[in-house]
Amino acid sequence: MASTRNIISPVDAQVVPRYAGFSTYARLPRLEDLPTGNTCDLAVVGIPFDSGVTYRPGARFGPSAIREASRILRPYNRYAKVFPWGRCQVVDAGDISVTPFSITKAVTMIEEGALNLLRRNPGLRLMTIGGDHTIAFPLLKAVNTHFGVKPALIHFDAHLDTFPPYFGEDVTHGTPFRNAFDQGLFDSHHSIHVGLRGPIYSPADDEEDKKIGFAHVHCQDIQREGVQAVIKKIKDTVKDVPLYISIDIDVLDPAHAPGTGTPEIGGFTSRELQAILLGLDGHVVVGADVVEVAPAYDHAQLTALAASQVTYELLSLMCKNTWNPHTKAFETITPAKL
Amino acid sequence: MASTRNIISPVDAQVVPRYAGFSTYARLPRLEDLPTGNTCDLAVVGIPFDSGVTYRPGARFGPSAIREASRILRPYNRYAKVFPWGRCQVVDAGDISVTPFSITKAVTMIEEGALNLLRRNPGLRLMTIGGDHTIAFPLLKAVNTHFGVKPALIHFDAHLDTFPPYFGEDVTHGTPFRNAFDQGLFDSHHSIHVGLRGPIYSPADDEEDKKIGFAHVHCQDIQREGVQAVIKKIKDTVKDVPLYISIDIDVLDPAHAPGTGTPEIGGFTSRELQAILLGLDGHVVVGADVVEVAPAYDHAQLTALAASQVTYELLSLMCKNTWNPHTKAFETITPAKL
Amino acid sequence: MASTRNIISPVDAQVVPRYAGFSTYARLPRLEDLPTGNTCDLAVVGIPFDSGVTYRPGARFGPSAIREASRILRPYNRYAKVFPWGRCQVVDAGDISVTPFSITKAVTMIEEGALNLLRRNPGLRLMTIGGDHTIAFPLLKAVNTHFGVKPALIHFDAHLDTFPPYFGEDVTHGTPFRNAFDQGLFDSHHSIHVGLRGPIYSPADDEEDKKIGFAHVHCQDIQREGVQAVIKKIKDTVKDVPLYISIDIDVLDPAHAPGTGTPEIGGFTSRELQAILLGLDGHVVVGADVVEVAPAYDHAQLTALAASQVTYELLSLMCKNTWNPHTKAFETITPAKL
Amino acid sequence: MASTRNIISPVDAQVVPRYAGFSTYARLPRLEDLPTGNTCDLAVVGIPFDSGVTYRPGARFGPSAIREASRILRPYNRYAKVFPWGRCQVVDAGDISVTPFSITKAVTMIEEGALNLLRRNPGLRLMTIGGDHTIAFPLLKAVNTHFGVKPALIHFDAHLDTFPPYFGEDVTHGTPFRNAFDQGLFDSHHSIHVGLRGPIYSPADDEEDKKIGFAHVHCQDIQREGVQAVIKKIKDTVKDVPLYISIDIDVLDPAHAPGTGTPEIGGFTSRELQAILLGLDGHVVVGADVVEVAPAYDHAQLTALAASQVTYELLSLMCKNTWNPHTKAFETITPAKL
Amino acid sequence: MASTRNIISPVDAQVVPRYAGFSTYARLPRLEDLPTGNTCDLAVVGIPFDSGVTYRPGARFGPSAIREASRILRPYNRYAKVFPWGRCQVVDAGDISVTPFSITKAVTMIEEGALNLLRRNPGLRLMTIGGDHTIAFPLLKAVNTHFGVKPALIHFDAHLDTFPPYFGEDVTHGTPFRNAFDQGLFDSHHSIHVGLRGPIYSPADDEEDKKIGFAHVHCQDIQREGVQAVIKKIKDTVKDVPLYISIDIDVLDPAHAPGTGTPEIGGFTSRELQAILLGLDGHVVVGADVVEVAPAYDHAQLTALAASQVTYELLSLMCKNTWNPHTKAFETITPAKL
Amino acid sequence: MASTRNIISPVDAQVVPRYAGFSTYARLPRLEDLPTGNTCDLAVVGIPFDSGVTYRPGARFGPSAIREASRILRPYNRYAKVFPWGRCQVVDAGDISVTPFSITKAVTMIEEGALNLLRRNPGLRLMTIGGDHTIAFPLLKAVNTHFGVKPALIHFDAHLDTFPPYFGEDVTHGTPFRNAFDQGLFDSHHSIHVGLRGPIYSPADDEEDKKIGFAHVHCQDIQREGVQAVIKKIKDTVKDVPLYISIDIDVLDPAHAPGTGTPEIGGFTSRELQAILLGLDGHVVVGADVVEVAPAYDHAQLTALAASQVTYELLSLMCKNTWNPHTKAFETITPAKL
Repeated sequence: MASTRNIISPVDAQVVPRYAGFSTYARLPRLEDLPTGNTCDLAVVGIPFDSGVTYRPGARFGPSAIREASRILRPYNRYAKVFPWGRCQVVDAGDISVTPFSITKAVTMIEEGALNLLRRNPGLRLMTIGGDHTIAFPLLKAVNTHFGVKPALIHFDAHLDTFPPYFGEDVTHGTPFRNAFDQGLFDSHHSIHVGLRGPIYSPADDEEDKKIGFAHVHCQDIQREGVQAVIKKIKDTVKDVPLYISIDIDVLDPAHAPGTGTPEIGGFTSRELQAILLGLDGHVVVGADVVEVAPAYDHAQLTALAASQVTYELLSLMCKNTWNPHTKAFETITPAKL
Repeated sequence: MASTRNIISPVDAQVVPRYAGFSTYARLPRLEDLPTGNTCDLAVVGIPFDSGVTYRPGARFGPSAIREASRILRPYNRYAKVFPWGRCQVVDAGDISVTPFSITKAVTMIEEGALNLLRRNPGLRLMTIGGDHTIAFPLLKAVNTHFGVKPALIHFDAHLDTFPPYFGEDVTHGTPFRNAFDQGLFDSHHSIHVGLRGPIYSPADDEEDKKIGFAHVHCQDIQREGVQAVIKKIKDTVKDVPLYISIDIDVLDPAHAPGTGTPEIGGFTSRELQAILLGLDGHVVVGADVVEVAPAYDHAQLTALAASQVTYELLSLMCKNTWNPHTKAFETITPAKL
Repeated sequence: MASTRNIISPVDAQVVPRYAGFSTYARLPRLEDLPTGNTCDLAVVGIPFDSGVTYRPGARFGPSAIREASRILRPYNRYAKVFPWGRCQVVDAGDISVTPFSITKAVTMIEEGALNLLRRNPGLRLMTIGGDHTIAFPLLKAVNTHFGVKPALIHFDAHLDTFPPYFGEDVTHGTPFRNAFDQGLFDSHHSIHVGLRGPIYSPADDEEDKKIGFAHVHCQDIQREGVQAVIKKIKDTVKDVPLYISIDIDVLDPAHAPGTGTPEIGGFTSRELQAILLGLDGHVVVGADVVEVAPAYDHAQLTALAASQVTYELLSLMCKNTWNPHTKAFETITPAKL
Repeated sequence: MASTRNIISPVDAQVVPRYAGFSTYARLPRLEDLPTGNTCDLAVVGIPFDSGVTYRPGARFGPSAIREASRILRPYNRYAKVFPWGRCQVVDAGDISVTPFSITKAVTMIEEGALNLLRRNPGLRLMTIGGDHTIAFPLLKAVNTHFGVKPALIHFDAHLDTFPPYFGEDVTHGTPFRNAFDQGLFDSHHSIHVGLRGPIYSPADDEEDKKIGFAHVHCQDIQREGVQAVIKKIKDTVKDVPLYISIDIDVLDPAHAPGTGTPEIGGFTSRELQAILLGLDGHVVVGADVVEVAPAYDHAQLTALAASQVTYELLSLMCKNTWNPHTKAFETITPAKL
Repeated sequence: MASTRNIISPVDAQVVPRYAGFSTYARLPRLEDLPTGNTCDLAVVGIPFDSGVTYRPGARFGPSAIREASRILRPYNRYAKVFPWGRCQVVDAGDISVTPFSITKAVTMIEEGALNLLRRNPGLRLMTIGGDHTIAFPLLKAVNTHFGVKPALIHFDAHLDTFPPYFGEDVTHGTPFRNAFDQGLFDSHHSIHVGLRGPIYSPADDEEDKKIGFAHVHCQDIQREGVQAVIKKIKDTVKDVPLYISIDIDVLDPAHAPGTGTPEIGGFTSRELQAILLGLDGHVVVGADVVEVAPAYDHAQLTALAASQVTYELLSLMCKNTWNPHTKAFETITPAKL
Repeated sequence: MASTRNIISPVDAQVVPRYAGFSTYARLPRLEDLPTGNTCDLAVVGIPFDSGVTYRPGARFGPSAIREASRILRPYNRYAKVFPWGRCQVVDAGDISVTPFSITKAVTMIEEGALNLLRRNPGLRLMTIGGDHTIAFPLLKAVNTHFGVKPALIHFDAHLDTFPPYFGEDVTHGTPFRNAFDQGLFDSHHSIHVGLRGPIYSPADDEEDKKIGFAHVHCQDIQREGVQAVIKKIKDTVKDVPLYISIDIDVLDPAHAPGTGTPEIGGFTSRELQAILLGLDGHVVVGADVVEVAPAYDHAQLTALAASQVTYELLSLMCKNTWNPHTKAFETITPAKL
């Protein structure tokens, strides 16, 4: 399909040096730069919101930092064996504007902003860059509403994010997957947390979460059993349910991602995270986010580079799915078709 | 009065090195360490709240950073010619706990927290360290309620902070003095902004503010006319009305205070700010705050050191006032009595 | 004139928070976003080139950092009493692409890139953000060629930038004004260096420069005589010749602008620089640049904020000039007309 | 035992946000806040001393930085399956004051300070945060004197710390375990260095150390053989001798702990260190220290977070031991009793 | 041979603290401090050139930063079991001066500078510290010319560095091994890239490179197969051909080496790199370089420490080779002879 | 005298770029590079000692950082109108090695080290770079012993440095001028502190200091009266007594010199300090030091650049004095002779 379309590509690094030009994700065209009528398959969209955090704020500057760091990306993913923006039309849709002063209003604005984008043309999916983890709740809602699917959730994070209310607030960056579960927005029996570590409030945190249905992969598991075992456990959990992948950058060790809001030592290396994401090749991904990049705590763009590359891996997965207008569902393009 | 009391002093730097021991402001005793019955004259209190900011968040870590930087303070203010914590009982009252998720609730919690402290014993005044500038509104309210005075306001800031609602929110860090004016919490005809600079939204911002009654000192005024002229203008404005002094650390140039939420170039040097504060000697100060220290943007504690020292100058002013139980008002102790 | 046009304004901060959305200078529209036929008065354009530096490189990342820091600008310049992008159409024209590998080729590419922009519509002027100071040479050439004027040059810098060749290279960031003089690109007898300081190679550096015709203002002059004397000296020098203003951010003290390539202590404060620029109100400015921001050495955006605000001051000057199609020259709009 | 006592817990994060309130370790009560008569099981105590360093100083600010970073800790250690401060009474005993000007005097002050604490009530043990590694010598002495045990030593460090005198000084941060051996303060035949790497002065350094009796685990060993082999080697060495665990934060790779005095590349990840510490579950620990955090070289609290969490793992081990007043020794509480 | 010579050693850390004295690599003597007639075996030489970079510049400050970080090195490499500067005469030959303004001229200057050094006395080899990777091309040329050998190349890097011209420039930091291949400067069928990762421009990048003859080790290979498999693959590739080892510090993960020009996440740990280099013991190394350290992006010397230690590992390999004046070749000293 | 000698100059920046080559102060020759018999007039010498500090340590890395920052200096001081190293022979004498473990021993080592240098040839004077301020005491002693003069002292500092013993230690970085006074090492009635500010322990600190004889210039004095008044007060105090100038870099505001051990806000700008030093032209200077640069707290070399340039100003003063072998004293060369 993509081959017959006139895909608008990122700026060419042989014409414009990578440090030059406006800062869009991977120097992709903006959504508003697509000619009318051109369809769009994947839209990178920022949500600069961090009013749901419980410790270090600052993720509101995440989208801008990730875009800036993504200048260095090159077009061919040699491990996924794909040109993500050659295979399909990818754009940078800019940021969804959100009030910083009310979580309730913000959650509505995010859901509406996401739906507005999704409705642009059939088959368009969102690759969201945050912002704090609160945003995953309205994003899951939009995916659910728009595509009518309850995706399996792969949640990369040091934390469960199914915590109880904090300071009386039911929706925070510690609660999105409890909020989503309460509204039945994902298939909790094919869902998994990957990268758990650090102390919790009580054993009940883990237990309640398991009652929801989540499988758990702890960082000490990957330490003991290795990457392949983790990939297997994820695949055994999600089966062939379409995926929503949510990556809190704090799944990485602070050495790899210092610029984040709730750092926990003992995390993944970026190499491990890349290996796991490559291991998910062949799954349908209906939506994804990368969140919790807090640039004020970053150094030499370490965290923003990691988030930018992880976003690229997700786009590489997503660009292999295509919208089938007949089944009204996403399908993975089989290798033969590639 | 103070001379007959058993004042509890900070830790002695000849016994505990200044880098050692718990981090209270200036290594003062905690309020809870005062023996029952001991009265307290001045309480340093932190308000780690930054959900009212419109740009860079992070001032929630301000109180902790200011305390850490205040380790280096020594007991005698040779320019104000006073031992601030020898003259009267000063303590660190810790932080007022505030929800980060609702400005409305937070404002109530701050007001109540402040009143709870003020009611501990007659004559106790608060020296507050923020936190973003939103907190000045409930603090003024508490001062008003508790002491029954409408203070003149000296507001050091790059910005007017009487701005209209932002994103539909009536109370933010850009509005505290409009909020306070609307409730009649200060004497707006003896009040003044000092340190204004930078672009605004429209001329109406300045005009509306002047209608409230504020006098204006711009940074270009001090550039042109010097410190003494500024002091004179302030004194001519406030006359002998008791003062509330609110210092947004962004009144300092970013070279002197990089760690702040809304930086504007072209500001005061810390030396100028100190000179102006010394020039206010002899005025009654019923309350004060130092706000908008965002440590994630600080370097080598520059901003925290400035805030810590500025707090010390304010305490040096305040400790020269004393509560007269007969008049039920603060009075400046005349030099002869010192 | 501007009032009858449909000027496209920056993003509204009440709709899109200042930390959100794509990063253009001051969140202005991109040049390519102007409807066909709309004229443009002022174009901010980046030149990410730093291969002419002799010490710390990195100014290639300057345009991007200045754009990011400019998010915080507000629309009304209360000291210049003007809405720069309300008065006339201002856009962000993106970056001119330049090879990093050959100064000779780069100089040609810059000149051509600038001319291409200037030719878009009559009366369009460029406000360039660098990049290292090498770029001033081709920019002066473009101004000269296009407008047919030899402007007076006001050069804010710690250094003379009329130095002899370095390592056999005749065109570097230390030579642009000697290069420009050799080609007769400016009116050297109405030109001035402002902010000189630091050691030089030999007295001949100063002497040769004076032979070219430059007047000199040293930082110790402003220390001794103050801002008003400096403004007077500048005005006495440039008379009513149309101006080209070139600002090396190292004219500021490293305390105010640490992120630069050739730092010299003892410089201007940002407040002094603002005062001087405000003092130039009423002069015709045919082109301007702000250069030598090296973000890798910056902290908390100090340097980028300074460059962003200084650019704003220049735009505030420039927007008061208007192109007279009859005289084919720029004229200052008289106050009565404003 | 603990279950019948009225244990004073840390501040509740649902009442006081984790970024608020005074900075004690993990927001535990101060020792002086325990009601008279309340026994204390574990005291975190800082020793802000760095005059024994041979390269980068600054660890005097370590205790303060570790306390600040420990705000983020939560109460339940899900891997050790214990609430460290629910199981027993843990407090923050503040800092032991030490002169920075004489190692000899400092060593005496540390020993006396530690003994004063230990004598507060039977069964109290110290979890010390440094400060440089010099402090391990007097701490071992205090443990020895007070408990009358010669503990096995598990020493996590890039360096041997049994080096000969340096600049004629017999006691430095490179010598504590030679000093301790010379006084017979630990059981050198059940002791082990873990994490060794980097160049040494000569093969004699390793040889002399082995003569003392130490087993050696190099970082290249964990690279080759994995974490479980390291745990086994440690357990085979220490057998069931009560432990003193001394952790130089430089056992971690500089990527994980940049803020330290004598960095060596090629170190442990924080995940490996956590795995090893978890592997020591069931051993009696009579004392422990975490040293060599030099905050001036830290970034985004990486090192302080690591030290804070490692301290938490040590407390999790220690809280499972309990003082038996009959045997006058510590015993591990058997799982059945937990 | 070396044993009978009067080798001049580095400064003794027992006499001059490691933070004191001039900054030469490992505090070695300068080449010019060798008495006339003394032969030199290994010369560390800096090439402060970074005009070949395509993204972040700054490696011109690399040699100085590496020297400063090397103060902390100690004389005995316990894993290689050698005193590198006891075994043979090692010196710091300072920097080769290079123009920053022309790659063509610079390449010639580097080649000539290297040859000048090599010609000082027979058997002298260079251990070069960069500078950007462009310098590997003229260095290989000098090795080739001087020793008449076509070495096998072990190239540690995230990138292939056999890329096509960029911006029309045939020689950049992305091309040195294509340039060298075009001139037949190394044995491309016994050469290998180690540490590859990240996106590329197209599959042709990898394919063209393999046509040259290079074997490839990707970071995901070491993740999956471990260090020993990588060592085996390298040794199987290079066989017994004399080696040139070129290490781009970006082979390390940005967590371990943030200060570099073209960072890619998912890299080697410094421990893995050390393990691989130790695994090369016994091979003849005719020259080596460590490049792409950009200190402006470094923190707490992480990158400079890594480069300094990696250089030390290379010297440890090289010092085990000795020049045989009869065969006019380097030979490895057999363990018996050591 | 100098004119007939063969002066060895710094490296030529047209041959070796300023970022290249070994790092000696201003790229001057090392003392050991002077041919035997060549006399030396001025030796820059480092004293990497910081064991006398009471707050932030780290000045042991000061000499190295100042040398690195001095690469950017150029040869002609256009304000002092002199080529400092053209006028006389200036060298970098490296560092005096000092134990970090005993202040008493260190003070002796510094005195002996200084005397050893001074005795090299008649007329040689030292320009010392620290190191903490403790070193001024033995340096004054060496000047006194060697030249037989009791110099007037101009002491630039935020602090008095005549404080009483701290933690029982009589000699610290807070005491050098009391120590020196007690031994009669300077002419206390022609001596002055310049730049005083910040709180003190008690009024007795100032009073005791004045009893010694010091005149005082506070930062608020320069704020009020300006630079010329300060110069006049200094000259009125020192009269024509030969000078020893001791500059604690904390005389500068932390905005200008963040990297120091005991920062105080409200300090001098670097421009003011330069103006004052230029105002001392014509005085005989027998020795000088610049101390308290703590690089771990520096950013973008701000503090090191300031110290490096201030050292250059001092050398510019000193090079105008010349040793008269007949009078055995230094004399200022009269302008006519220059």
